[in-house]
Amino acid sequence: MTETRASVDRDTRDAIGDLFVDYAYFLDHEQFDDWLALFVESSTYKAIPRENVAQNLPATLILCENKAMIRDRLVALQQANEYNIHTARHMVSNLRILAATPEGYRVTANYAVFQTDQDGRTRLFSVGTYEDRIVRVDGELKFQDKVAVIDTASVPTLLAVPL
Amino acid sequence: MTETRASVDRDTRDAIGDLFVDYAYFLDHEQFDDWLALFVESSTYKAIPRENVAQNLPATLILCENKAMIRDRLVALQQANEYNIHTARHMVSNLRILAATPEGYRVTANYAVFQTDQDGRTRLFSVGTYEDRIVRVDGELKFQDKVAVIDTASVPTLLAVPL
Amino acid sequence: MTETRASVDRDTRDAIGDLFVDYAYFLDHEQFDDWLALFVESSTYKAIPRENVAQNLPATLILCENKAMIRDRLVALQQANEYNIHTARHMVSNLRILAATPEGYRVTANYAVFQTDQDGRTRLFSVGTYEDRIVRVDGELKFQDKVAVIDTASVPTLLAVPL
Repeated sequence: MTETRASVDRDTRDAIGDLFVDYAYFLDHEQFDDWLALFVESSTYKAIPRENVAQNLPATLILCENKAMIRDRLVALQQANEYNIHTARHMVSNLRILAATPEGYRVTANYAVFQTDQDGRTRLFSVGTYEDRIVRVDGELKFQDKVAVIDTASVPTLLAVPL
Repeated sequence: MTETRASVDRDTRDAIGDLFVDYAYFLDHEQFDDWLALFVESSTYKAIPRENVAQNLPATLILCENKAMIRDRLVALQQANEYNIHTARHMVSNLRILAATPEGYRVTANYAVFQTDQDGRTRLFSVGTYEDRIVRVDGELKFQDKVAVIDTASVPTLLAVPL
Repeated sequence: MTETRASVDRDTRDAIGDLFVDYAYFLDHEQFDDWLALFVESSTYKAIPRENVAQNLPATLILCENKAMIRDRLVALQQANEYNIHTARHMVSNLRILAATPEGYRVTANYAVFQTDQDGRTRLFSVGTYEDRIVRVDGELKFQDKVAVIDTASVPTLLAVPL
């Protein structure tokens, strides 16, 4: 199951990188409308523990099957966060374009998310990798399918913003 | 207050990325003269807790209003570090160019700084984001204003090298 | 001992970045044959504590003087990992090309490796920097010499995959 890397032109490569940077920027700045605008209407969002992926188990922590569900989930997370206030900081790196087809791009990138509480104490919250499908809509790249494969499966209850 | 992303040519984009890499490299290698050379004479350096930025509070942890003050601060930090020896490692990612004007570039990037003590124990020291203004001087990019917006506000006393 | 940065064309720069991403991807996915294919036959792999480098001490934690030794080491690590199962996640950033000569490229990049155990608990495992020599073989970039300079010298016994 070795994944080779796809060759894409440099503008596309940069634009894909920018999409991930925007994704993290909007989450960390709690600009959730801007964040939602990075998804197409028919998009899906999943968070899956890594061991389930390895064992081909279907269980997901979060499963949003369209953009309305992603929006609902976001509202629920924001309400929970009112009682457990903290901020997030996403570090995204190791971008790797696996496939480029007429249907879009399959892309992975690693993330480390750090959370800081109201006393300014930061801790590692979650590390993992994105396994996404990205499409071009009216000239702009957007997420068709967002999958966060989560190494850190022990803290889902504290999930305050999407990974 | 949504910040759009500015479009710059690829050479400039790469050069801005390189400036951040140099900034981290010189700090981690304690090449402080090289690090200082990345700032223009009239440059400012600030470290601000994130919650102060969010609430528009002016309080800063560190405020250097010109390059001489940055140099003084650096000397003070090095002296403090003689009694509390540890090394730093900066991870910088999520570069985002917010604006490109004739006066320069406004740029953000996220950082995670790890500290290691003399027994080889590493801990997360600080995460946050840079909100910088970069200018071109004699063909080279330099920092005009460096602002470290610090998520991790609980450990300023241990600050051994600049963030 | 200030290291300047070498100027290379953008395709080479991207290809060097991709090599590091592949290196981390194959390790994290435990695709070890693919990982080994990133090294030339005569390649070396070293892991050295940072303070030894600073003091010019020769002691290394790991020293593989050719590709067969790297392969042997990998097998030993995999056997040890059977009794101490965890997964790794490499974040690589701050790529810096120090030199470009007919013999190849000298390149540094920072890493942070996170380990997750079977209960889904993640911890910071090691941070440090790579100081590598990369060569072009039949049009492809490969590692000639891989040196992991390790800040975190306190946990070598848990080394499950190469850094």
